[in-house]
Amino acid sequence: MEKKRYIVALGGNAILTDNPSAEAQQKALEDTAEKLSVLIEAGHEVIITHGNGPQVGNLLLQQIAGDSDENPAMPLDTLVAMTQGSIGYWLQKALQKTLSEKGLDKEVATVLTEVVVDENDPAFNDPTKPVGPFLSEEEVADLSDGSVYKEDAGRGWRKVVPSPKPVSINEANVITRLVESGFVTVAAGGGGIPVIEKAGTYTGVEAVIDKDFASAKLAELIKADTFIILTGVDNVYVNFNQPDQKKLEQVTVADMERYIEEEQFAPGSMLPKVEAAIDFVKEAPEGSAVITSLENIASALDGNGGTVVER
Amino acid sequence: MEKKRYIVALGGNAILTDNPSAEAQQKALEDTAEKLSVLIEAGHEVIITHGNGPQVGNLLLQQIAGDSDENPAMPLDTLVAMTQGSIGYWLQKALQKTLSEKGLDKEVATVLTEVVVDENDPAFNDPTKPVGPFLSEEEVADLSDGSVYKEDAGRGWRKVVPSPKPVSINEANVITRLVESGFVTVAAGGGGIPVIEKAGTYTGVEAVIDKDFASAKLAELIKADTFIILTGVDNVYVNFNQPDQKKLEQVTVADMERYIEEEQFAPGSMLPKVEAAIDFVKEAPEGSAVITSLENIASALDGNGGTVVER
Repeated sequence: MEKKRYIVALGGNAILTDNPSAEAQQKALEDTAEKLSVLIEAGHEVIITHGNGPQVGNLLLQQIAGDSDENPAMPLDTLVAMTQGSIGYWLQKALQKTLSEKGLDKEVATVLTEVVVDENDPAFNDPTKPVGPFLSEEEVADLSDGSVYKEDAGRGWRKVVPSPKPVSINEANVITRLVESGFVTVAAGGGGIPVIEKAGTYTGVEAVIDKDFASAKLAELIKADTFIILTGVDNVYVNFNQPDQKKLEQVTVADMERYIEEEQFAPGSMLPKVEAAIDFVKEAPEGSAVITSLENIASALDGNGGTVVER
Repeated sequence: MEKKRYIVALGGNAILTDNPSAEAQQKALEDTAEKLSVLIEAGHEVIITHGNGPQVGNLLLQQIAGDSDENPAMPLDTLVAMTQGSIGYWLQKALQKTLSEKGLDKEVATVLTEVVVDENDPAFNDPTKPVGPFLSEEEVADLSDGSVYKEDAGRGWRKVVPSPKPVSINEANVITRLVESGFVTVAAGGGGIPVIEKAGTYTGVEAVIDKDFASAKLAELIKADTFIILTGVDNVYVNFNQPDQKKLEQVTVADMERYIEEEQFAPGSMLPKVEAAIDFVKEAPEGSAVITSLENIASALDGNGGTVVER
């Protein structure tokens, strides 16, 4: 089989579900790594990206709980960097374990990744992404930290931050060199550390980047052949739960754009995954994007499963 | 000038002194990166390692403050990984800034680093390294977390953890490839994430590894020419503050071993730096180790400063 370059985007919820202990998250990642290893076993180059939603939320809570003049809470860009450290470590350790168990002579590298966003991105005028704990209206009124808080579906108030689009990735060359050199590479954790650029200098910003969009940008920059977006279901559906429900298998970018116009996909859920798949395929004429579940990844590799988006 | 491979070990206290805010730590690292850049400007390959003492201590405090069933405090190996994320990000951003300002066409890579220790290391029977907050005797009595606490010079009780010696470094090949490819590489932050190995599987342990010993091991494995250990003073002294005080400039391993026997160096301060320098030079027949200050690094590069240890 021809060696191809795969990039796989893993959800933060694939790591933390009901048990937030370090032990349980590491165990979940061992299962994940074992399933992902079919790609490595087949001889492909593999880059893995991952979300950090639950983890950065928990870290933010701890930072707030321990906040003092002597030990101030860190800003969001630094917290994303911390979760690249923790989740990256757990994931690489899990990959090392499965590679060893399968007798695959491969090493793993985890690269801190800065993702550049545009300071004029309209997202900065309209923060939408909730982070951190639920607060009461009184608690929010007492805060004067310059942050924006929004009421979240009757559950309380939450801080919201901008979610700008990725423009470029500072470590694209580093990641390309590592994967070319045979290392299984973990990168762009949590959508990347959000930075803006001014005259060659990067500054962290209070924002989070959607991990599927960041992964699509990385897939483009490192010239991946296939971009796999993992989610909870084996396939994308249209007319979901209706008499004419249809499982999508092979679809074109034009098909998907039409379905988006028809509002077939839930915003904040399947929609950004479909958009990220389109983003990559538009930039990679020969590339394909696959949306499927971790459980289905082996069949997706055989071309027998998942929703495959191509030109 | 001949291109050489330098590895520079930076103290955690060079990043956090009196002001613990993210902003102040990033500013301190910008000054540090600017001074370190003389090595890059001179055309050398550069790997930078760093401590994390104050930062991991502060993170541990925040974790304890926010600890709950829903959001449990993370173990020490994971916290070290987090500080590799935060400090690594700050340091690489600072390096990117100085490289851009000086018009040097170099990119920076930060690699999560696992350092393997021996589970039979005697350090595991004698935890000595204090981490985290000072507690009262009553607070310690109330804890039943299996940790060891020791009274610390009348200031209260602190948790102590083992500080085993580094045996190997899982990412040595990754780091070598990156530095060979021209990337300025940040690695082994906080002495590395401590892991033990069993049948190819790595497990994190509750320990911290001395960053100078970890850096010496990395210097050996990546075949560095020169290992620079940065400290608060330009040179190592013997008979310090005595009439026959002597500044050390060019010394051999045998000289240094004799001075150690004479107990010339303070344990927990200059002694581990001298031992790390010896460790490296013993493994690298052509290599040299330099102990000096960040301020003196430019003169050390010219061979006119610092304490230089050679065979």
